Amino acid sequence: MNINNQGYNVAVVGATGAVGQKMLETLDKKKFPIKNLSLLSSSRSAGTKINFQGIDIVVEEAKPESFEGVQIALFSAGGSVSKSLAHEAVARGAVVIDNTSAFRMDENVPLVVPEVNEEDIATHKGIIANPNCSTIQMVAALKPIQKHFGLSRIIVSTYQSVSGAGYSATKELINQSKSYLNGEEMKAEILPVKGEKKHLPIAFNALPQIDVFQENGYTFEEMKMINETKKIFHSPELSVAATCVRLPFITSHAESVYIELDKENIEVADLHKVLSEADGVVLEDNPANQEYPTPLSAAGKSDVFVGRVRKDLDNPKGFHLWIVSDNLLKGAAWNSVQIAEKLVKNNLV
Amino acid sequence: MNINNQGYNVAVVGATGAVGQKMLETLDKKKFPIKNLSLLSSSRSAGTKINFQGIDIVVEEAKPESFEGVQIALFSAGGSVSKSLAHEAVARGAVVIDNTSAFRMDENVPLVVPEVNEEDIATHKGIIANPNCSTIQMVAALKPIQKHFGLSRIIVSTYQSVSGAGYSATKELINQSKSYLNGEEMKAEILPVKGEKKHLPIAFNALPQIDVFQENGYTFEEMKMINETKKIFHSPELSVAATCVRLPFITSHAESVYIELDKENIEVADLHKVLSEADGVVLEDNPANQEYPTPLSAAGKSDVFVGRVRKDLDNPKGFHLWIVSDNLLKGAAWNSVQIAEKLVKNNLV
Repeated sequence: MNINNQGYNVAVVGATGAVGQKMLETLDKKKFPIKNLSLLSSSRSAGTKINFQGIDIVVEEAKPESFEGVQIALFSAGGSVSKSLAHEAVARGAVVIDNTSAFRMDENVPLVVPEVNEEDIATHKGIIANPNCSTIQMVAALKPIQKHFGLSRIIVSTYQSVSGAGYSATKELINQSKSYLNGEEMKAEILPVKGEKKHLPIAFNALPQIDVFQENGYTFEEMKMINETKKIFHSPELSVAATCVRLPFITSHAESVYIELDKENIEVADLHKVLSEADGVVLEDNPANQEYPTPLSAAGKSDVFVGRVRKDLDNPKGFHLWIVSDNLLKGAAWNSVQIAEKLVKNNLV
Repeated sequence: MNINNQGYNVAVVGATGAVGQKMLETLDKKKFPIKNLSLLSSSRSAGTKINFQGIDIVVEEAKPESFEGVQIALFSAGGSVSKSLAHEAVARGAVVIDNTSAFRMDENVPLVVPEVNEEDIATHKGIIANPNCSTIQMVAALKPIQKHFGLSRIIVSTYQSVSGAGYSATKELINQSKSYLNGEEMKAEILPVKGEKKHLPIAFNALPQIDVFQENGYTFEEMKMINETKKIFHSPELSVAATCVRLPFITSHAESVYIELDKENIEVADLHKVLSEADGVVLEDNPANQEYPTPLSAAGKSDVFVGRVRKDLDNPKGFHLWIVSDNLLKGAAWNSVQIAEKLVKNNLV
């Protein structure tokens, strides 16, 4: 490990999970200044060795005292772990960047996508929440549009990969795909939601359920997109509707997004201009040459990709977009590390 | 073959294709009264033997004279075949039910989904067009809603299976899936559009292009959904927007549909009631028990399945639905045979 004495003491909670692994890759790739790195997990995964920058680090069970001396703690081990340990970490002086839904709607916790509301980081009281993957890529792409033309309405239908439900869901897709191609019965034990009553095959299928159903008929994933988007934009009056669908691919989420602007007389070229100039957004939109992003083309990349920008044929303020990003990177690990970078840059840790 | 002397002389053009095969299955299953059955195709497939009700029938090359004596001709061999031969069939006394896009927007040709506009069949001048698969299932599900509550707006994002692009696309998905799971490179030669400049892998991916791009940035598939929906509902002022996406499953199309009603104070229970009473529509909507349709659950069935009915959280006239149907049955073969049944029932042939 390139020990950096000017660096920070960092803990990754949930280091053996799908997002935790991407957090380690991202800390390395983005050369985040690390003095000491603690890898923490549930007791089940404790003892695993993970190599980081040439050094084997033993994963330890996450306990309150694990956070002694930690300055930045990246949590991604599920909401219950965050609820029980985030405040313990804060009490010991750490700033927590939490990738679970535990604190996202807590009014004392800023919910941050750096390209959208970096300034909210400064208001933290110890915990900063990382939004849901499907929210992050959408607001990152819509921010330049909202900034220049105003935004009154969003209707999104998602196309989400299985990796958002963790390694076990990815394995399930692969195993089911093999079974299907061999003419065998598919075993469904994880998706649509781990621990739910009923499980359905995802291979060669589409499941219109991500996370559990709420009283109002929406899933929790849909409500996350709705509520988090309003909070990140500081715009409770913004209309947001979401339908979230799990699909048989491994990486990246795609989104078919309809928006209504405040300004009139805006054209596709105006949207292209502000999208192509926006940080973290890559415009891939050339129908004449069949250029548009896909889950496979976005996988492994940090940016949010936008294509298929079209003006609605009936509403002159309406536009349609296709937004794709790697759900484990910008949707999770990279957004968390970005928040850590901003903390460092602004001396907020 | 159960020769029925009270039956009709029927021709199936494109008998060896994915839809043609489903047409034969459907004619058999629905006990359509057939006196004589001609199976026609391109010269490439001529000579193939197809067994129908126990009798081997040799597929013949479709030529103008093939239609002598034919009363009902079901066309599904591509737009160019329909353009060159449909009028020849009509000139020889046949009623053509055309499953291609060749005549759908022709003002002299009724475009029919029997549950929606059966009465338009009577206006035919020899050709009746079968709408696009993604249009059929959407209008079939929306008709009872439009009839009872009025409909001013539709925004749809589709989740479409590869079988809509024919046998070769289905084979491509299967071969690519095997390659991917074996760690081999995926060969893309068919999708997103046969004959287009660029091909992209569909396995473990999503392609936001179905059919070729139009000048306005929409694909032809999207424009079909928009224009055909207005025509079938006889409602040029209805706002319709579509984003069409090809996905890695074999059968059924799913659709995330946002609608705005004319009437106020309508609740989910009202939509449930009219949907559950509608012909050809099956309501599968019980979130508490994780009940909703999926592509796999709808495959092989004739009906249109509707679930995830939710009221929009901002617009009191807005609702969201998830509509799924077998694209080769209600989306193609069954709708065509249904039209033939209505022709017979109303002595229009």
